[in-house]
Amino acid sequence: MKKNLPFIVVLIAFKSLSQSSDETTLKTIFDEALKNGQAYEMLEPLTQHIGPRLSGSQGAADAVEWSRRVMKDYNFDSVWLQPVMVPHWVRGQKEIGRILNSKKKIDVHICALGGAVGTGPQGATGRVIEVKNFKELAELGVENIQGKIIFFNRPMDPTEINTFDAYGGAVNQRSSGASEAAKYGAIAVIVRSMGLNKEEDYPHTGAMNYAPGLAKIPAVAISTKDADLLSELSKKNKELQFYMETHCETLEDAPSFNVVGEIKGSEYSDEIILVSGHLDSWDLAEGAQDDGAGCVQAIEALRLLKAIGYKPRHTIRAVMFMNEENGARGGAKYAELSIQNKENPIVAIESDRGGFTPRGFTMSGPENAKAKIKNWKYLFEPYGLTDFEQEGGGTDIEPLFDRGVLVIGYLPDSQRYFDFHHAPTDTLDKVNRRELELGAASMAALIFLIDHYGLQ
Amino acid sequence: MKKNLPFIVVLIAFKSLSQSSDETTLKTIFDEALKNGQAYEMLEPLTQHIGPRLSGSQGAADAVEWSRRVMKDYNFDSVWLQPVMVPHWVRGQKEIGRILNSKKKIDVHICALGGAVGTGPQGATGRVIEVKNFKELAELGVENIQGKIIFFNRPMDPTEINTFDAYGGAVNQRSSGASEAAKYGAIAVIVRSMGLNKEEDYPHTGAMNYAPGLAKIPAVAISTKDADLLSELSKKNKELQFYMETHCETLEDAPSFNVVGEIKGSEYSDEIILVSGHLDSWDLAEGAQDDGAGCVQAIEALRLLKAIGYKPRHTIRAVMFMNEENGARGGAKYAELSIQNKENPIVAIESDRGGFTPRGFTMSGPENAKAKIKNWKYLFEPYGLTDFEQEGGGTDIEPLFDRGVLVIGYLPDSQRYFDFHHAPTDTLDKVNRRELELGAASMAALIFLIDHYGLQ
Repeated sequence: MKKNLPFIVVLIAFKSLSQSSDETTLKTIFDEALKNGQAYEMLEPLTQHIGPRLSGSQGAADAVEWSRRVMKDYNFDSVWLQPVMVPHWVRGQKEIGRILNSKKKIDVHICALGGAVGTGPQGATGRVIEVKNFKELAELGVENIQGKIIFFNRPMDPTEINTFDAYGGAVNQRSSGASEAAKYGAIAVIVRSMGLNKEEDYPHTGAMNYAPGLAKIPAVAISTKDADLLSELSKKNKELQFYMETHCETLEDAPSFNVVGEIKGSEYSDEIILVSGHLDSWDLAEGAQDDGAGCVQAIEALRLLKAIGYKPRHTIRAVMFMNEENGARGGAKYAELSIQNKENPIVAIESDRGGFTPRGFTMSGPENAKAKIKNWKYLFEPYGLTDFEQEGGGTDIEPLFDRGVLVIGYLPDSQRYFDFHHAPTDTLDKVNRRELELGAASMAALIFLIDHYGLQ
Repeated sequence: MKKNLPFIVVLIAFKSLSQSSDETTLKTIFDEALKNGQAYEMLEPLTQHIGPRLSGSQGAADAVEWSRRVMKDYNFDSVWLQPVMVPHWVRGQKEIGRILNSKKKIDVHICALGGAVGTGPQGATGRVIEVKNFKELAELGVENIQGKIIFFNRPMDPTEINTFDAYGGAVNQRSSGASEAAKYGAIAVIVRSMGLNKEEDYPHTGAMNYAPGLAKIPAVAISTKDADLLSELSKKNKELQFYMETHCETLEDAPSFNVVGEIKGSEYSDEIILVSGHLDSWDLAEGAQDDGAGCVQAIEALRLLKAIGYKPRHTIRAVMFMNEENGARGGAKYAELSIQNKENPIVAIESDRGGFTPRGFTMSGPENAKAKIKNWKYLFEPYGLTDFEQEGGGTDIEPLFDRGVLVIGYLPDSQRYFDFHHAPTDTLDKVNRRELELGAASMAALIFLIDHYGLQ
């Protein structure tokens, strides 16, 4: 018994030393972020000078060049572009949405959903039928729906504490409502905006897809406030008509790029730790929280590691994905090239839930790797990260998950996100400098631990 | 062994039942807050119609009447006013702050600190001596300070994750800097604003106190951006002069009130569970986060319990304290009346850290009561409250703590608070409806548990 004691003491001493050194490194990372952080300064030109940057637009091209230059200026070891063809949908002139009844016309706030066909200059007019879900739609059937405009008005559930769960519970109205309604002969759909604030007078756009073999009908989002108004008026007047005019169209696929910057690993340079955000935003938004925040946090994570003088053993890569919003072609292309180039990604992190105060990380992938990361939770708790239990990664890194790679989503507080998501209110002033930096530091800290200890 | 089994089973079943029933009650409270919450609607008139409400002002009187009426309208069992005499400090006309050097005059953003004497129309001019702390001041001594203006420029430490710790580490410059400088013959002090954002062009006011027996010299806050400018210019020019003109003065104490509303307990009506905020705000601020949020959350906590049909066993009392900002007379008066009326407060909760996303509760008082509350942590975790370890209550309830009462502070996320604290930016639009409601629901949930299980 006594014989073994010195060995045990050494082990304990070593453990304490390494723990205390990890704590010191994390503090060094967070201190650098909070004292000298540059994420907010990066976000300023991306949101206020470049602004909206939907795939295929000039803004997206400018954002590609901006992020290439920023990573070059930080002297990352390599910075390059990955060509990818992306969908090119354009909104055209501003939409008109109008409630028509016998007494008066009321203009309401609508916008076309991304990917939708337009009505063209002749517009579309029809009786409004409000439904809450696809089951109600099926029950109404062709006889009640043929030639009408379907109004999907199921609100996001405000009682979900995680607002992404509320989003997940409502978003099928937006993503597949048009095709569901087209099955029964509807001529267009109006979808209640995906937002939790009932007082908004601006619509939230977002992606929709047409199912194969069904008529492609126009689809618009309506502001939550106007959705309540439309619902109220249509209950009073069963013959209420709605006029919409949208000029959107899908052009030929356009050339674009993912932008990649990396710091080469000293020991396992062929093993890649990836951290990412997506460069594209919706056309009506500056995309400050979605996902300018994620982009600058990914770049900042690498900058932080450089700034504290950390030399990674693995290769650390910041990836700005293109086309998360309406096609996810960038993520698919990255995974395709990764296979083609026989790369070995060991983990992929994405920040695409806004740059709010950190709460934790979501994870999907190999159980042993997840368990190892959960063991580091105590190191993150002093910085407010306590939630390591949720599944999930990010849209752009899902193709890597499909190949067995551990994927991690940065998990910030979610309460404010859907006030801005896909809306004109998603502007720089909604981002708090400290919250943004704490997210970048959290990801840099996780990268450090994975790089230092590996995931085996 | 076997004989006892049914009893054990019953015990387990009862525990599960009661746990599951607690979980259900908490969910009912949070659901009501998130679906039908009225805290934000309450905050609107308090901030946008009444606005600034420093003790002794018309705004403070209006806020008293507003909160009395709101609690009456909610049909609380009793609503009454507690008279209290409060300090009555007035700012007078807008301050002038000017950097003077040989080449030009530069106007900077300053405001008098609350409680300070004014310079009067003749102003005060003097050479600027920058110091970081009271030790530097002592080292400089009378020979270097006599007749000069002391510029306290120690920033809040941005690396503190809890921004209240950063505030605590810097605020003595504001609260006692004037008297410290007066010891060595300074004629006035300029204090760097208590804010973490270095780019602000507005000053943060706040309370200062003069130590007995020393000269009362004028004291102003300067915006963080202008503090950096002044520091830079005074390093370049050792003879740099500063001109300030302030017209503030302290008038006779004024009559005011705490406002109390209560729901009578069915079983232990003489035992009081108190939940509170403070009604007064600084004169330059709408006081949305500080502390309109706390006031409406306290009222909302009682409203939520009524709305779900909960009949409390103890008396639940919402208290809007007057004069937290510059004297804490309301808190002292409440405690005094509580003794006089032989009241039995069993716990006092205050929300005075803003209406941001909940993180937990701070607690000071009897260990057994704290331990009991910590045992309920698992019930709060689904709502994001994980921090139950910090000491603390609130300024207004401290006199109750001194009597041995358990005091609890509502603990929200702290990252944004000092961007608004005591500044003109503390407006309604900085408050998020869901974050505000989650705080009210958290306090209502805690009140329910304390009421149901007691603290023994």
